[in-house]
Amino acid sequence: MSYSHYTSGHNSSSPSAPPVPENQSQSGGGYAYQRPPSSQQPNYNYNYNYGQPQNPSSGGGGGYGSPYGYAPAPAPNPPSFPPGTHPEVIRSFQMVDSDRSGFIDAKELQRALSSGYQQFSLRTIRLLMFLFGNSADPHRIGPKEFAELWSCLGQWRGIFERFDRDRSGKIDLAELRDALYSLGFAIPPTVLQLLISKYDDQSGRRADLSFDSFVECGMIVKGLTEKFKEKDTRYTGSATLSYETFMTMVIPFLAAE
Amino acid sequence: MSYSHYTSGHNSSSPSAPPVPENQSQSGGGYAYQRPPSSQQPNYNYNYNYGQPQNPSSGGGGGYGSPYGYAPAPAPNPPSFPPGTHPEVIRSFQMVDSDRSGFIDAKELQRALSSGYQQFSLRTIRLLMFLFGNSADPHRIGPKEFAELWSCLGQWRGIFERFDRDRSGKIDLAELRDALYSLGFAIPPTVLQLLISKYDDQSGRRADLSFDSFVECGMIVKGLTEKFKEKDTRYTGSATLSYETFMTMVIPFLAAE
Repeated sequence: MSYSHYTSGHNSSSPSAPPVPENQSQSGGGYAYQRPPSSQQPNYNYNYNYGQPQNPSSGGGGGYGSPYGYAPAPAPNPPSFPPGTHPEVIRSFQMVDSDRSGFIDAKELQRALSSGYQQFSLRTIRLLMFLFGNSADPHRIGPKEFAELWSCLGQWRGIFERFDRDRSGKIDLAELRDALYSLGFAIPPTVLQLLISKYDDQSGRRADLSFDSFVECGMIVKGLTEKFKEKDTRYTGSATLSYETFMTMVIPFLAAE
Repeated sequence: MSYSHYTSGHNSSSPSAPPVPENQSQSGGGYAYQRPPSSQQPNYNYNYNYGQPQNPSSGGGGGYGSPYGYAPAPAPNPPSFPPGTHPEVIRSFQMVDSDRSGFIDAKELQRALSSGYQQFSLRTIRLLMFLFGNSADPHRIGPKEFAELWSCLGQWRGIFERFDRDRSGKIDLAELRDALYSLGFAIPPTVLQLLISKYDDQSGRRADLSFDSFVECGMIVKGLTEKFKEKDTRYTGSATLSYETFMTMVIPFLAAE
């Protein structure tokens, strides 16, 4: 398998990938491990902006008119979906949020996504919760994070289908490379080999990736790349990390119960 | 939970930990994320020296006296145990190596270890195979690696039992810290918190660690620390990594099929 044209002439080997915008030179000449998002994918680079004001709808108040002599502080609005969220997304969330708490856990997320996508492995689900959820409450996600996640998966599904050219439901290493590139990640061949080798079967035979594994792979790349970028603010392609920083960056990606 | 004495007076809080040898000052004043092995634990720091000459016993030759006109090269000796390996270790290996190939896969390793230790989760088993196995053949391990792994687990079992002071079969965060310290790893409190938080139960309640989880935690620390040390050869406590190096260091630790 030759990668000789990987960095020098990528677009020639994947004509359907969106063109790289001209402002790529902003990356400063280092290894372009993350391309700026192309204009065709305006929503690709999520801002995990949890400080946005909540949708002020549906009060539910609590507290006012209490029989007690003092008025307790009103309960905070339950978390709600951003305006314009597709009704199917809201329905999928509410279907599994049986206690109407406004938050769902990993198993509930797995069920909610299966109504729009498929049954993801719990390992992929936990990775999604880690990347899209709130680090202060890693075991549950709310409506806003769910809507973001749903929309991101929709976009990834589209890209997966575009690169699964033979419609087998699986993509191979070259297709994974092109798909990640089209999501904005130019992954060095050694890294890509290492990543896909984790899906080899027991006898060491290379296996193609299902959508579930593609999402897991892609989220690992997205998550680790974003972590690295935080430490490489000037896009030099390398970063100096203390031992503590290194460990703190990496450990959340390791699977556990 | 206070960590105020963690770095300044560790030994006072864990009197049973082996003393730090005087040559620790060789580490150059950086954060001592890995202590040199103490003299009480001469075997702690394994050298993964796969270049050692094979034990020349038990030929099995093949080939000689072939009816063909040329003598084919003799088959290489099957891999064998280092001299002095305890018979129980050899028996445990041979019990699961049903095809007598001299190599065992993850499920066979799980069964082999369960005869001497316990049933480890497949996740822990895969981590052990990655850390003790041969990177050229990540799906199987041979007798020499098995013997090393067995001996390492024996040592870790001893340390686990030493720090499980109430004999509950579980250790808590402070005991994990002391146990890792006694294995040679001085882990920053933030890292330790992050590591143990992966074993929280579904509702986010802190759970104590079984021996299985202790081995998983410890092997993650051992593996990542050794990787980091390779890039921080002068023990300064920090390392400059390219994006590709960073990704290549980390990805093998992420779980997959």
